[in-house]
This record gives sequence, C-alpha cells and structure tokens, in this order.
Amino acid sequence: MSVLIEFSMSPLDQGESVGDYVARSLAIIDESGLPYRLGPMGTCLEGEWDEVFAVVRRCYERMREDCRRITAVIKVDAREGRSGRIESKLERVERSVGRKLRT
Amino acid sequence: MSVLIEFSMSPLDQGESVGDYVARSLAIIDESGLPYRLGPMGTCLEGEWDEVFAVVRRCYERMREDCRRITAVIKVDAREGRSGRIESKLERVERSVGRKLRT
Amino acid sequence: MSVLIEFSMSPLDQGESVGDYVARSLAIIDESGLPYRLGPMGTCLEGEWDEVFAVVRRCYERMREDCRRITAVIKVDAREGRSGRIESKLERVERSVGRKLRT
Amino acid sequence: MSVLIEFSMSPLDQGESVGDYVARSLAIIDESGLPYRLGPMGTCLEGEWDEVFAVVRRCYERMREDCRRITAVIKVDAREGRSGRIESKLERVERSVGRKLRT
Repeated sequence: MSVLIEFSMSPLDQGESVGDYVARSLAIIDESGLPYRLGPMGTCLEGEWDEVFAVVRRCYERMREDCRRITAVIKVDAREGRSGRIESKLERVERSVGRKLRT
Repeated sequence: MSVLIEFSMSPLDQGESVGDYVARSLAIIDESGLPYRLGPMGTCLEGEWDEVFAVVRRCYERMREDCRRITAVIKVDAREGRSGRIESKLERVERSVGRKLRT
Repeated sequence: MSVLIEFSMSPLDQGESVGDYVARSLAIIDESGLPYRLGPMGTCLEGEWDEVFAVVRRCYERMREDCRRITAVIKVDAREGRSGRIESKLERVERSVGRKLRT
Repeated sequence: MSVLIEFSMSPLDQGESVGDYVARSLAIIDESGLPYRLGPMGTCLEGEWDEVFAVVRRCYERMREDCRRITAVIKVDAREGRSGRIESKLERVERSVGRKLRT
C-alpha cells in the first residue's frame, strides 16, 4: 500500500512564532529521501507505513529536546496499488476540473 | 485576523475513487476568488473567518446533493496582523532551512 | 443531515497551559443547548451545519479577544437520516465488539 | 513525555456503514492494555510514543487485510511530566468552568 500522510507539528510553549521549529522538521524530512511536498499548513510524505512514521518520530524526538508541549496532526490516506500519488492526485483533480488550478 | 484553513472533504459512501467529488469542490473554491492552494491531501484557503467557512459550506451543500455520508477535516491557523500567508509561510521555512525545498 | 463535529481550539501564544481558554469555549458550548460531549482531545457537537459552526465561530470570536494566534482542528461526520449520534455511535461499537468499552 | 493521541481510522471503499471496522480497531485497542477512551469521533490513547503508535499500526495492518483504501486522522498532544491525562484534562476543564459538563 502507498501510505500518503500529511502532518504538522508545533510546540505549544514557545510563543506564536514557530517557524524555526517547523524548519528543523523540514530539514529532517528533506534528508529522509522520501517523496514529500511542503504546504502552507503541513507537509505531505509518501512511503510505506513504517517509513513515513519513522520520519514523524524523528521530528518529534528532535522537538522534544527543547519543547515541553508538542501538538501534531497527522492525516493518513493509504491506498492499494498506487504510488507517486503526491503528483498524481493533483493532476487528477486538475484534469477533472478541466482547468489549471493553483497548486 | 488572517484565517488560513486547510480542508479536505470526501463522501464515505461512493467507493474508493472520490476524485470527481474533490474536483467539484475545487471548482467552487477556484470560483470563490479567495487565495487558495491545492495540495495532495487538502486545499488551503485564506480570508476572513466568514469568507472561508462560507466556501466550505458551499462545498458541503453541493456534496450532500448526492452523497449520504460526508467526512471532512478542517485545520485552522488564525493570526493577527498578517496576510498573504499561503506564500509567506512557505518562503519563511525555506529561508530558515537555507535551501530550496519541494513545495 | 445530522452534522456531528469534533473540534479543539487553542491559542498558540499563551504558553503550555491552555486550560482556561478551553474552559471558556466549553462554557459557550454548554450554553448553546446543542447536544455535546467533552473528551480529552476535543468536544463533539451535533446539529445542523449552521448550528454547529455558529458555536465554533463564537468560541473563535471569544478567543481572539485576547489571543494573537489560534489553531483549531474540526472533524466533520455528516450523515443522512440519523440523529442522536453522539450516543448511538458509542453503543453501536460496544455492541459490535461484544463487551463494555471505556467511554 | 506523556503522549496522548486521538485517532480515527476508516475504510473509504466499504460503503457508508463502517461500524464493524471501527469495532475491530476497538478490540485491538482494548487488548493493548494502554489507557484509552472511546468517543463518538475517535479514540484517545495514552502512553509513550512507540506504545501508542504500535497500536495504531496494528489497527492499520488489520484493516488493510480487506480494505483497499484507508483514511485516518491522528491528533497528538505530548507533554512533559504528566500522566493520567485522559482523566485529568476533563477534570481540569470542569473545575475551571465551575459546573458539571457532559463527558
């Protein structure tokens, strides 16, 4: 199964600007080698279940080094017999709407 | 306040391929005139609270015409004194990581 | 359609203890007269689309009075021809598992 | 850190009634021995990171035996130096509101 997740993770105890913490997670994601795509509200990541959740765990372990309270939301969309879904899902919607969308 | 939301909405009673339903929502979003960005797992939308939730409601009203069960997830990030955040949040993370990321 | 939502809303700029803000939202929810149920990670609320989202909006308006950054997650489960689902969904799962569960 | 998660997991390809699949997950959760609490929109689970995510993974492995498309949402709230938070978070809010709430 292709496991596509989108996740966001933030400290709750570090004030309203959490960009530096997000950046540290992104560095971990970028180095994982898995296909990913950063969005304004979270990052999509594709792989096997254990692969994608190992990356989420690394982000958590890094954040807990200096944060006392951490919140995260992980959305999962697992589908049999597909891969390359980060790109294909966007193309599919654009084709169906019949015009170029902002992606 | 700038209200940035990410939302995804799917019928639960229409089988595993829900791309046509997603496409109908995207047409509604694209016609709303609000800044948006389609991602693999949801669409980001920015505006005032009432503006963005009016769009989500239109997507729901359209979907309930022919679906009996609908699920949605809406993530909200509201922040005082900012706008144009769909772009600026991505730029901010890239700048902080110090390299080009996949967006 | 019965619209069942679960939502949680927190300030991101008020430190790690956000219980007082959650309590203010709960007071608003309790006074709404809609069926609800408080859980450890969010509150379930049932009604028509406009009813439940009006309550969420009141919680947001109250919180923005003294918070500069607010995050929320809203999960929606809308279903034709049902009501009283806050109770019935729990009973249905217990019956199917065949033993008393912790609810 | 106490890791409190709430998660829901459903097949997208099995029609609008997914109660039997939810019941199978609940049996797995109940047998895990971790503190949990079933709610109308998801189940809360508390433990170490690896403990709670091992349970989520078992639910996924069981569901993929006969489902081709699976969606899940996992909310995480991790906090230093606390435990027993499934109960304590509810008590804290009730105390703060100053009246009995529906839990």
